[in-house]
Amino acid sequence: MDMDEPIFKEAPAVRAAADVRMRGFSHRATVQQVLAWLDQQPVTESTEMVATIQAAGRVLCDEICSSVDVPGFDRAMMDGYAVQARDTAGASMYNRLPLMIVGQSLPSVGFSGEVQRGQAVRIMTGAPLPAGADAVLPAEEVTAEQDRILASGEVPPGKHVGRRGEDLRAGAVMLRAGRRLRPQDIGLLVSTGAVSVPVRRRTRVRIVSTGNELLPPGSLPTGYQIVDSNSSMLTALVVRDGGEVVAVDRVPDQPSEILAAMRSSADIVLVSGGSSVGQEDHAPVLVAEHGELAIHGVAMRPSSPVGMGRLDGRLVFLLPGNPVSCLCAYDFFAGRMVRQFAGLSPEWPYRQELLPLANKLVSMIGRVDYARVTMRDGAVIPLAIGGASMLSSTTVADGFVIIPADSEGYPAGHQVRVYCYDGPTTAVP
Amino acid sequence: MDMDEPIFKEAPAVRAAADVRMRGFSHRATVQQVLAWLDQQPVTESTEMVATIQAAGRVLCDEICSSVDVPGFDRAMMDGYAVQARDTAGASMYNRLPLMIVGQSLPSVGFSGEVQRGQAVRIMTGAPLPAGADAVLPAEEVTAEQDRILASGEVPPGKHVGRRGEDLRAGAVMLRAGRRLRPQDIGLLVSTGAVSVPVRRRTRVRIVSTGNELLPPGSLPTGYQIVDSNSSMLTALVVRDGGEVVAVDRVPDQPSEILAAMRSSADIVLVSGGSSVGQEDHAPVLVAEHGELAIHGVAMRPSSPVGMGRLDGRLVFLLPGNPVSCLCAYDFFAGRMVRQFAGLSPEWPYRQELLPLANKLVSMIGRVDYARVTMRDGAVIPLAIGGASMLSSTTVADGFVIIPADSEGYPAGHQVRVYCYDGPTTAVP
Repeated sequence: MDMDEPIFKEAPAVRAAADVRMRGFSHRATVQQVLAWLDQQPVTESTEMVATIQAAGRVLCDEICSSVDVPGFDRAMMDGYAVQARDTAGASMYNRLPLMIVGQSLPSVGFSGEVQRGQAVRIMTGAPLPAGADAVLPAEEVTAEQDRILASGEVPPGKHVGRRGEDLRAGAVMLRAGRRLRPQDIGLLVSTGAVSVPVRRRTRVRIVSTGNELLPPGSLPTGYQIVDSNSSMLTALVVRDGGEVVAVDRVPDQPSEILAAMRSSADIVLVSGGSSVGQEDHAPVLVAEHGELAIHGVAMRPSSPVGMGRLDGRLVFLLPGNPVSCLCAYDFFAGRMVRQFAGLSPEWPYRQELLPLANKLVSMIGRVDYARVTMRDGAVIPLAIGGASMLSSTTVADGFVIIPADSEGYPAGHQVRVYCYDGPTTAVP
Repeated sequence: MDMDEPIFKEAPAVRAAADVRMRGFSHRATVQQVLAWLDQQPVTESTEMVATIQAAGRVLCDEICSSVDVPGFDRAMMDGYAVQARDTAGASMYNRLPLMIVGQSLPSVGFSGEVQRGQAVRIMTGAPLPAGADAVLPAEEVTAEQDRILASGEVPPGKHVGRRGEDLRAGAVMLRAGRRLRPQDIGLLVSTGAVSVPVRRRTRVRIVSTGNELLPPGSLPTGYQIVDSNSSMLTALVVRDGGEVVAVDRVPDQPSEILAAMRSSADIVLVSGGSSVGQEDHAPVLVAEHGELAIHGVAMRPSSPVGMGRLDGRLVFLLPGNPVSCLCAYDFFAGRMVRQFAGLSPEWPYRQELLPLANKLVSMIGRVDYARVTMRDGAVIPLAIGGASMLSSTTVADGFVIIPADSEGYPAGHQVRVYCYDGPTTAVP
């Protein structure tokens, strides 16, 4: 889909509650209109302090400066002897120069004296360079005797010495705001004594699963009742996207209960089920009555009965109850905001592959398709499953292909971009 | 690096403890030899049962079959009227056919009677199809009156009906062993009533940080003491790779304490520091004395003083204390095994990009280089930092390029593969 197409001129907001069921979905918003609306929504930037050792994957809110020099002292970069470099001038295998061993310097326990001319201090990698010395003569260039060495190599001043602050200076910016902390960032922060760091709070997401027919996860489906699986799938998606699920509310198709759940504390509310225009689809009416139902119905497949808006200042997503639609609507719209509230990129966390289609992939002008596909022998095979209820189509699928609204689909052989459901793994060379 | 090159014929094992310091690193193993040794090591496959709702990202140990049909009953796929399809034969806008409304079917509360000829039951999406009916006439093709409808469209038998078991049959394999569970897999499992699933246990990793000079994370470096940052970096890497850190032992350079820590329970032991051939490098000698030191010294930069072997049947990695070397040695060797014990691919979890070099990148024949680079304006810029102690080089870097042992490096403009340190994000279309 080309994001450079002209953006809609007129807001597609559904203003009055009465409109919701009257209008039905006669005027669906385009996916682009929805994304444009989402990108206008304010993103709350909440900060919390977390222990540095637990901050991997979190997003920094402020730049972090080193409070110390790293390293904190001049140190040896090789095992050998700390010397005055000029004492090695002219040393070679044929001109070994003697130096008196006057002590040793180990990590954490330096040499307390000062190295004079004609002297050497045995030193280990990482140990502090003694006063008076300005270079390290590597062990390989030395013949050690009882209390003296014979230098068979020359070193210039500064050789094999790591200077105080050469990795980082006190006060220097180590990491900038917006950085998603990597393992090595944690190491760097810990090495400078940073006990805790300010990071974006995880997006606080409330999941409201609606439907009289729902049993809680862990139940066996019985009779005409089905298990609420969407809340479990959504929880995993939210966690993947930097959020935390503050609550899962399972409520019957009762407007008062749905409204109360949607109004409880959260940054973002995900309502699963009852998002359409039927008599038991209460959530859209409630959002329109008590807040703003900005979008209701989108020209896409699956997920066309998706809605979204604001209630008590928080974002509410009305996700279709059909599992595939729920996944697709989350991927397209809700996930984008969950990630942004957590300080992450709005973009999809899916690995991409460009591959040719094995069979044609058909869509309709005016509608965006989220087509599940498999990949075999370097080609993309569309899954011949239309039903939005077919959750197994998303577990059989290796990923999905997006067919934009201005396309009727692609012929066999056409190269398409597959967004892969699997986690990222790449070959070790 | 081409993995098809001939594998070494002779095992590079270091047999006797006395060899360790005598040999020094005069005979370094190649990276390929090390990978070949690693790939011969047995991978423990431990299983545990975890609650399905907490199993996202975990790896299945067994195939999982559905215990129920999904859906568990024939159901409506549209809002409308359950009918006998033959009653709609010939219906059109110009030939509206009347049907008596005899009840309704809602999700979880079906219609208890049987639909007879000339009858219709109001039905919602997801509600059970009543006995006697064989199709759903969509609400859009109906004019509803008080107690009857006028059908203005025709439906064939089965239309808009989701058949019992059409998504999944009881007994059918849903997910296969080795699958890393995705959010939608969790949904599918929950919908079939799977309360818990058998998954690979997380790799149990023990981190042993050695050095008299080490202060625990959370300390400010003072005097000649430095903060143990490697254990914090390694912890984040292990968690990323599907492991859990069962303990971090910080021990002084005392052989007895290092040995005791290495022998404590774990699948894999990561020793940080003291991996080389100096007088305070105890761990290689201890592994050679009490177990098998298979590798000590590798032809690579950084990380050449890396070692590995087996002790009490567990894998022990001796990682250099210099932070960059520690990261590189983990990436090349230890991470590969942490991932495999967790049931994950041995391959790197890094996103890859193919881009041209802005400047030349120099290496040496016979040595594998792990060159940190940045990326700017679509080109790759090598970081001009040789020091393995420069942890800041890995936080400044956007990723790394591998220069294989048979290459002296690449000229400016040469296309190289960058392994990117950032997490995976891809553009929402």
